[in-house]
Amino acid sequence: MSNRPQTPLLDTVNSPAELRQLKPAQLRQLADELRLEMIDAVGSTGGHLGSGLGVVELTTAIHYVFNTPEDRLIWDVGHQAYPHKILTGRRDRIRTLRQAGGLSGFTKRSESEYDPFGAAHSSTSISAGLGFAVANKLSGQPGRAIAVIGDGAMSAGMAYEAMNNAEQAGNRLIVILNDNDMSIAPPVGGLSAYLARMVSSSEYLGLRSLASKVARRFSRRVHHGLGKAEEYARGMATGGTLFEELGFYYVGPIDGHNLDHLIPVLENVRDSEQGPVLVHVVTQKGKGYEPAENADDKYHGVPRFNVITGEKAKSAEGPPAYQNVFGETLAKIADSDKTIVAITAAMPSGTGVDKFARAHPKRTFDVGIAEQHAVTFAAGLAAQGMRPFAAIYSTFLQRAYDQVVHDVAIQNLPVRFAIDRAGLVGADGATHAGSFDVTYLASLPNFVVMAAADEAELVHMTYTAALYDDGPIAFRYPRGNGVGVEMPAEPQRLAIGKGRVVRGGVDGGKVAILSLGPRLAEALKAADQLDARGLPTTVADMRFVKPLDEALIRQLIATHEVVLTVEEAAFGGLGAHVLTMASDEGLLDEGLKIRTLRLPDVFIDHDAPEKQYDEAGLNAPQIVDTVLSALRHNSAGVEEARA
Amino acid sequence: MSNRPQTPLLDTVNSPAELRQLKPAQLRQLADELRLEMIDAVGSTGGHLGSGLGVVELTTAIHYVFNTPEDRLIWDVGHQAYPHKILTGRRDRIRTLRQAGGLSGFTKRSESEYDPFGAAHSSTSISAGLGFAVANKLSGQPGRAIAVIGDGAMSAGMAYEAMNNAEQAGNRLIVILNDNDMSIAPPVGGLSAYLARMVSSSEYLGLRSLASKVARRFSRRVHHGLGKAEEYARGMATGGTLFEELGFYYVGPIDGHNLDHLIPVLENVRDSEQGPVLVHVVTQKGKGYEPAENADDKYHGVPRFNVITGEKAKSAEGPPAYQNVFGETLAKIADSDKTIVAITAAMPSGTGVDKFARAHPKRTFDVGIAEQHAVTFAAGLAAQGMRPFAAIYSTFLQRAYDQVVHDVAIQNLPVRFAIDRAGLVGADGATHAGSFDVTYLASLPNFVVMAAADEAELVHMTYTAALYDDGPIAFRYPRGNGVGVEMPAEPQRLAIGKGRVVRGGVDGGKVAILSLGPRLAEALKAADQLDARGLPTTVADMRFVKPLDEALIRQLIATHEVVLTVEEAAFGGLGAHVLTMASDEGLLDEGLKIRTLRLPDVFIDHDAPEKQYDEAGLNAPQIVDTVLSALRHNSAGVEEARA
Repeated sequence: MSNRPQTPLLDTVNSPAELRQLKPAQLRQLADELRLEMIDAVGSTGGHLGSGLGVVELTTAIHYVFNTPEDRLIWDVGHQAYPHKILTGRRDRIRTLRQAGGLSGFTKRSESEYDPFGAAHSSTSISAGLGFAVANKLSGQPGRAIAVIGDGAMSAGMAYEAMNNAEQAGNRLIVILNDNDMSIAPPVGGLSAYLARMVSSSEYLGLRSLASKVARRFSRRVHHGLGKAEEYARGMATGGTLFEELGFYYVGPIDGHNLDHLIPVLENVRDSEQGPVLVHVVTQKGKGYEPAENADDKYHGVPRFNVITGEKAKSAEGPPAYQNVFGETLAKIADSDKTIVAITAAMPSGTGVDKFARAHPKRTFDVGIAEQHAVTFAAGLAAQGMRPFAAIYSTFLQRAYDQVVHDVAIQNLPVRFAIDRAGLVGADGATHAGSFDVTYLASLPNFVVMAAADEAELVHMTYTAALYDDGPIAFRYPRGNGVGVEMPAEPQRLAIGKGRVVRGGVDGGKVAILSLGPRLAEALKAADQLDARGLPTTVADMRFVKPLDEALIRQLIATHEVVLTVEEAAFGGLGAHVLTMASDEGLLDEGLKIRTLRLPDVFIDHDAPEKQYDEAGLNAPQIVDTVLSALRHNSAGVEEARA
Repeated sequence: MSNRPQTPLLDTVNSPAELRQLKPAQLRQLADELRLEMIDAVGSTGGHLGSGLGVVELTTAIHYVFNTPEDRLIWDVGHQAYPHKILTGRRDRIRTLRQAGGLSGFTKRSESEYDPFGAAHSSTSISAGLGFAVANKLSGQPGRAIAVIGDGAMSAGMAYEAMNNAEQAGNRLIVILNDNDMSIAPPVGGLSAYLARMVSSSEYLGLRSLASKVARRFSRRVHHGLGKAEEYARGMATGGTLFEELGFYYVGPIDGHNLDHLIPVLENVRDSEQGPVLVHVVTQKGKGYEPAENADDKYHGVPRFNVITGEKAKSAEGPPAYQNVFGETLAKIADSDKTIVAITAAMPSGTGVDKFARAHPKRTFDVGIAEQHAVTFAAGLAAQGMRPFAAIYSTFLQRAYDQVVHDVAIQNLPVRFAIDRAGLVGADGATHAGSFDVTYLASLPNFVVMAAADEAELVHMTYTAALYDDGPIAFRYPRGNGVGVEMPAEPQRLAIGKGRVVRGGVDGGKVAILSLGPRLAEALKAADQLDARGLPTTVADMRFVKPLDEALIRQLIATHEVVLTVEEAAFGGLGAHVLTMASDEGLLDEGLKIRTLRLPDVFIDHDAPEKQYDEAGLNAPQIVDTVLSALRHNSAGVEEARA
């Protein structure tokens, strides 16, 4: 405690209402203290730092000018909302961020009335803000919606869809474009180039010229005289025309760290009859903390670190991260296969595509936060004879579900889906969990769906996918590091739809565990414990949920008394596929003690991964319990009712 | 045959290669004949007419100027591609459109090398085109990609995502914006207003001024002198700046029915080193066929009609369409509940929201083709206390899957999903089938998922959803007309998670059929046939797939020898839920003849609905067969292997 920063003014501000009692001249000090407090907190918990540092002044200014929580403030993505959490009554818990039972690393409705809309995936804020604004308009209640959205998030189609519909909110909607020129990776695409031209071609607006102009009129570009050449041409400054053409009143760009600029502009926006307004604010990610400012990633997401030196806690040495195994394997395969290309949606390092890019820059495509485009772009590449790998987190692939169905599956195009962050993800919580991909992919005709049990399997599956040209193929693997198995010298091509028995034998046993993905390690632990109880246990790594290894399943059902499936996926995965196949074939007619362990029907909050697996019932003790309980189970109730 | 139009020139043109042998002066006649042929064909088959009529000249010009199929022509949505099909070797089958075994109503890869990318959902063409262009660039092959996309489709986020990434294609990508100012419904949003301003403020470009300018330079707005006022201001003509700001070379707007304008512009674009290019073409939907031109919907989708008079074949009088039952019911409920709002994504009449809109225009929101925004907008409305109904076709809701998961389900917000076109859809085929919604919704925590067995049930479910404030709730219903049941005087509030036994009794029988949705009618027919064979059959309409009526299932399992589920949904629906619950509870341990009928694991082509149900195995005879086969089944094979 004694090392905590001195924050005398912040200590007196326990709510936005109290913040609004301060004089404007005090806000600079408040923002400075807020920044120190945030750095100290994230130093002790780890989490997202750079983006929060970039919006310290903006957070202060918004709560100062607007009447939160009646005015609804929506932080896009939500990982930049730590300063917001400190100012809105959660300072006492700010050092529990992302810990079990502690504050979420994102905005969350259940945490505070100041979080009117939870987030974690990007680009939702304008749509949600429109909802709030229109609801208040219809019901005649006061209250505006303020959506703060980064320039990187603007590349997603849904932000554009929302802007295209914003006019109906009138002056109830304010969009603050937080232009920090770098979301997680360097931004890509035409919009980014456009914003860069705007910022580079006009100085940020000074207070005096700005405030008067803003007060006069939003409906004209306020820096008309500054950067607009008479002869309009591509490549020159363009003002906010893109936004104006979509129906916004554009204000900006303004310096997002200068409270003397921010406050009057926001006040004018607040008091205007015109709307919707887009305020273009330029900020610096990592602002005010030198180690972050100097780092390539601006300390986007960090482990605990030493606040004085910026030195980050080293994670224990261990097996390679799955994402890197994927990226490096694919890079190697691509050395001899010129048709392989890799696509990422703004996650080059998160997906390991950066490793591929280093070897094959021309065959790497970072499309920005644009998963829909990523998938259909991949489909087009595949249709023209390339072998595209779309590397997307399980949870983000949800953004492209229709493209997966309509452009890939129906056309049976050989797009390879490398699905990272499949299963539970620890501190990022429910919004980032990859729970549903097995369900939503393996229910589609034409799809092959694999899950890697360990990092060696991931090598084989990457290779197998590269060689599979008959249709779409997906392979999923978890967040984090591998389990430490020996890595293969050469990748193997797996037989499509064939599992492997990794323990026991197909010719008999008491218990058969059918595992999909990395729960295999727990299945093996459970098998040891069951064996020790005199229950000979066979364990199969199914590798494929689609096509199912039906022959293996038939055999295991025929030769075991209890059959159990285990997977890190929601309802609709391996378990449901095995049950369906077994009932289709009448294998359940004469009775079978069959159980399916899967992710439970709840959204699991952020926690340590092991704890999450406990909550999900997917660790070895629960596997053992399920088997024992099945063996004990007598169906007296059923028999009685039948009698 | 003798009534067919005279088409002497068209008769000589069997391929684009032959088209390219014509002289420019012959193209007008060719286009006229193409138009006549198309009108005649659609008159005899029904289908999409208005949009095809709008692109007769454009189709002719593109194939004349570009080297198809090496140059890849991608029609967005694909329903405007009938003239394209006639010109690309499919004229002899054009009168089989949308018939069993006949041509698809959309583009389809398996039909022709001139269809490089299938479509049916909108706004995919630019992404796919980029894929083709980049693939050719990487592999050093010749060939460009030409994406033709309507202004309505431009409202979808994925089109914007693609435009934002288009620069990497260079001059290999040409986007033709087919601006007909009306996709299916009148267009909405900022982009539409923007296009309207552009078109209204500048005359379409004349040939002479155009061709020279185009040849000189794409990189400047070509009609610089026409509509551009020095004092740039909102509401004035803006040229193509929106597209230029995203990195395109903009050309237009030009008259899309004037071949003398189209041909030279496209030739210049073809020969340009600059790119990507966006050519803005203005067309008239229904062009050249007076009844279509004069109709409100421009004969967008029509039944067979009399070509001379335009008179459409009347569909038989029958029960009301499901969509109208929904729209009218909701309108009535909303009379006394001011919090109800309805949202449609460019499908007001298709979803019946037009009925709601007539009564409650201010509470109706047509967001355009923008399903992602629609859902999160609804989530925002719900979070602010409204009761939003998002009425979206099953297949299009796939576009918003992540929003359903992340913004609605995780936050447990009471958004109501009215899911139209659930199940098979007849002539529209696989791309429009609503096969997966049960799977992808009922696997989500917090969701309630219902399926209406008939139009009276739809009334009750609409009402039940209106009154349900505890979280998200979805109800699905099919395309087409109800089954003719008596309509209730008052809607009933259904008990959440409770099914109903509609035939036989819970206290016993040989066979229990658990039905979800409108297959109930076939289940009842099957039950009659089974009864007649001495197999007393109980039929339950489960109403809810989530939460399951577990008590009812337990009881039916306990008191019947064969249990069968029937539903018009893919793997992962009622059947998998019942199997999973039964195995969780050990109800299968002692044996149960349980079978699950569902949509098969294939994409079912367009056909008459009854034929599709036959192919899917979901008609009464197949239900009966499944039961008989289960009863006959002995698990000798299993027993042998076990011994």
